[in-house]
Amino acid sequence: MEKKIEIAENIKFLEKSAIRKIVEAAPANSVNFGLGEIQFPPPRYLIDHAKQILDSKLLGYTHNAGLLELRECICNYYNTEFNNNVCVSNGAEEALFATFFSYLNPDDEVIIADPTFLAYRTIAEMLGAKIVAFDLDAASNFSLNKISFQKAFSKKTKLVVLNNPSNPTGTCFGKDEIDLIVKTCAEKKVLLVVDEVYRELFIEERPESFFSHKADVICISSLSKSHCLSGWRLGWAISNQPELIEPIIKVHQYLSTCAPTLSQEIALKAFSKTGMEESEKIRQQLLTNRKIVLDYLAGINILPNKSLPYLFVQVEVNDVKFAYELAKKGAIVIPGSAFGANAYGWIRLNCGIEKNSFLRGLKILRSYLSFIYLIDN
Amino acid sequence: MEKKIEIAENIKFLEKSAIRKIVEAAPANSVNFGLGEIQFPPPRYLIDHAKQILDSKLLGYTHNAGLLELRECICNYYNTEFNNNVCVSNGAEEALFATFFSYLNPDDEVIIADPTFLAYRTIAEMLGAKIVAFDLDAASNFSLNKISFQKAFSKKTKLVVLNNPSNPTGTCFGKDEIDLIVKTCAEKKVLLVVDEVYRELFIEERPESFFSHKADVICISSLSKSHCLSGWRLGWAISNQPELIEPIIKVHQYLSTCAPTLSQEIALKAFSKTGMEESEKIRQQLLTNRKIVLDYLAGINILPNKSLPYLFVQVEVNDVKFAYELAKKGAIVIPGSAFGANAYGWIRLNCGIEKNSFLRGLKILRSYLSFIYLIDN
Repeated sequence: MEKKIEIAENIKFLEKSAIRKIVEAAPANSVNFGLGEIQFPPPRYLIDHAKQILDSKLLGYTHNAGLLELRECICNYYNTEFNNNVCVSNGAEEALFATFFSYLNPDDEVIIADPTFLAYRTIAEMLGAKIVAFDLDAASNFSLNKISFQKAFSKKTKLVVLNNPSNPTGTCFGKDEIDLIVKTCAEKKVLLVVDEVYRELFIEERPESFFSHKADVICISSLSKSHCLSGWRLGWAISNQPELIEPIIKVHQYLSTCAPTLSQEIALKAFSKTGMEESEKIRQQLLTNRKIVLDYLAGINILPNKSLPYLFVQVEVNDVKFAYELAKKGAIVIPGSAFGANAYGWIRLNCGIEKNSFLRGLKILRSYLSFIYLIDN
Repeated sequence: MEKKIEIAENIKFLEKSAIRKIVEAAPANSVNFGLGEIQFPPPRYLIDHAKQILDSKLLGYTHNAGLLELRECICNYYNTEFNNNVCVSNGAEEALFATFFSYLNPDDEVIIADPTFLAYRTIAEMLGAKIVAFDLDAASNFSLNKISFQKAFSKKTKLVVLNNPSNPTGTCFGKDEIDLIVKTCAEKKVLLVVDEVYRELFIEERPESFFSHKADVICISSLSKSHCLSGWRLGWAISNQPELIEPIIKVHQYLSTCAPTLSQEIALKAFSKTGMEESEKIRQQLLTNRKIVLDYLAGINILPNKSLPYLFVQVEVNDVKFAYELAKKGAIVIPGSAFGANAYGWIRLNCGIEKNSFLRGLKILRSYLSFIYLIDN
C-alpha cells in the first residue's frame, strides 16, 4: 500500500462544517441570512479614494505592522497615543490567529464562551491548546454565568477570548460582567483577548472598548463590518501594552508579510470624520432592517440585543433541523448550536442583506415559522 | 515580582534580524538594493482594471480557496485542468506558512538549501520543526552538492523546501539536479515544496515548473515579482494532487479567511495575454538594469545566474561587515551569510530599482569596492 503524506496531527480534526451542509441543501437563488458579512455596498467615499490612490502610489510592501500613519490613526480611534502597540493584519481573522500563535503552547487552556464565534475554538485547537467553555445563560438573555466563568480557570489557563458585542447573539457584557472578567484575568495573570469587530454597529449606545482597561488585554477589530470592507482584509490587534503586540508583529511577518497596501491606504480615510459618518450610515441601514424583522416576526421571541447585524431568534425546536429544512425552502440561517450547546433552539439571522432578497427571505422564514408552530405548538 | 504573560515557546527565538541592523546603519536617502521587491510601477493595464472593478463590484469575501475563475486561470497557467488543486493566498508567504502548518509536526525535519530564502527556516522553527541544510557549492556556481543533499534525509524528514529560481543566488537547478531531487523525495515519500516566485523573471529561458513532476510536489508562487504587485498580497499553492492542497485550504480559512478580493480580480487579468505581456516588460527592464550592473562592476565576480532581480556579487571579504560599512556610505545590500554560511563573501543586489537611485547606488557600491580592493588585494 502506498504511503501517503500525512497532514499535521493538530489539523486532523478540521472538517467540512455543519454550516456548509446547510448551505448545500439550499436551492440556487436562496436568500442567505447566514453570512458573516454585511451585503451593503462599501462607502463610495472610500472607493473613490482607492481610485485616487491607484493613480498616485506604487503600493509596495509596507512595514510588517502596517503603515505608520495608519497605526497612528488606529490609536487615535482608541483615544490613545501611538506607542508601537498596534499590528495591522489581513482582517481580524489573521490578527486572531497571530495572537493565538504568539501566546499558546500545546496543552494550554483557552477559555471561551458558550455560545461564541466558532473560529476561537478552531484556531486554539489547531495550535494544540484545549478549550474550556463557560456558560452564557440563554434563560437570562445570554448573560454571563459568573460561577461558570470562574470555574473555567485552572493552572493551565493561558488566555480568555471573548467577542463583545457577541457573534452570534448581538449582546454586550454589562459593566459588572466586564469588571468581573477583567479583574479575574488580572488576578490570574491570564491574557484577555477581545474581538470587537461589531462595536460600531451598536443599536443604542456604542460599547466601550476593553482597550481602556488596565490589564493584559489585546483588542482585535477590523473594517469588515463597520465599513462593509470584508473583502479588503483589513484588521488589527492593539493593546495598552506594546510588549503584548511585539510578538504578534513578528509572527505576522511570517504569516503574510503585511496587510494589503491599498486596503491600508483606504483605512486611513475610514477613520476620518467622513469615513466614520459613512460607517454611521451603514449602522442606520441595519437599524432600518432590524425594525423590518421585528415587525415581520412579531410574536416570535427575538433576543433583546445591543448590536447588529445579527438577530438571534428563538425557534424552540431543534435548530439544526430547522435551519436545514428552512434552507431547502430557500432561506439560509445559522443554527445557534453551531456556536455552542447553550444556543440550542435559536437561529442567527444576519439582517445586513440587500433589500429585495431580504424581504423575500423574511417571507420564507415567516411562512416556515408559522408552519412549524402549527405542528409543534 | 510581577508575572508577565509568556509568549509561546516556539517563537522565543524570533529576533530583530541582522538585516534590520544594516538598514538602520544607512543614512536617510540611501539606495536600497536590499529589498525583496521590485520597485517598478505595476502594469497600468492592471491598475486601470482595478479601477473598473471598484466601480462595478462589491468585493465581499470570496471562497476560502479564492475566486473559482481565478483558480481556473492559475491552472491554465500551469497547463492543467482545474481540479480543486489550488489555494489562493495572501501572497506566497501565506501559502508557505499554510503549507508548513498543514504538514509539520514538532520535531519533524525540514530540509533546506544553504544558502536559501530565510523564511523557510524561520517558519519551520516557529512550528517546532528542525532544520537540516544541504550544501549548494559556492565553488561551482552554487550547484547542488548531491552527496550533501542525500545525507540530509533521515527517518524524521517530512518536507524539502526549495526555491527555484533561487533567492538569493538567482540560479536554477539543472535537469539532472531536478531529477535527483524529485526522485529522492518520491522514494523517501517526502513532501517537496517549491517556491517559484521568480520563475517569470528568467534571463534566457523560463525554467520549467516543478508542477509537471509526478511526485508529492506543492508549488508556490505569486504576482508580487512577476507583475510588481507586492503590496497586493496575491499568491497561491498548487499541486497535481488535490488532496495535498485540501488541508491548506482549510488552514488558510483560519489564517485569513480569503485573499483580498480586488487583488484576486486583477489577478484574473494578470494571467491574460496582455497581463503576461506586461510581465515580459518588467523582465525586459530588469535585463536592462542587469546589463548596467555587469558593465558597471566589470572585473568583479558576479555569479552567472538564470533569473532576476537579484545579482549575487562576490566581495571575498566578510560580507556582513562589507554590507554594514557600505550601508553607512548610503547603499544597502544583503550579505550572503544571511542566507546561509555557504554564501559567506557574497552580497545580494536587487537590480529592480528605479533608474536614478539605481545609478547613484551603483556609484557608491563601485567606489566602495575599489576602496576595499585597494586595501585587501
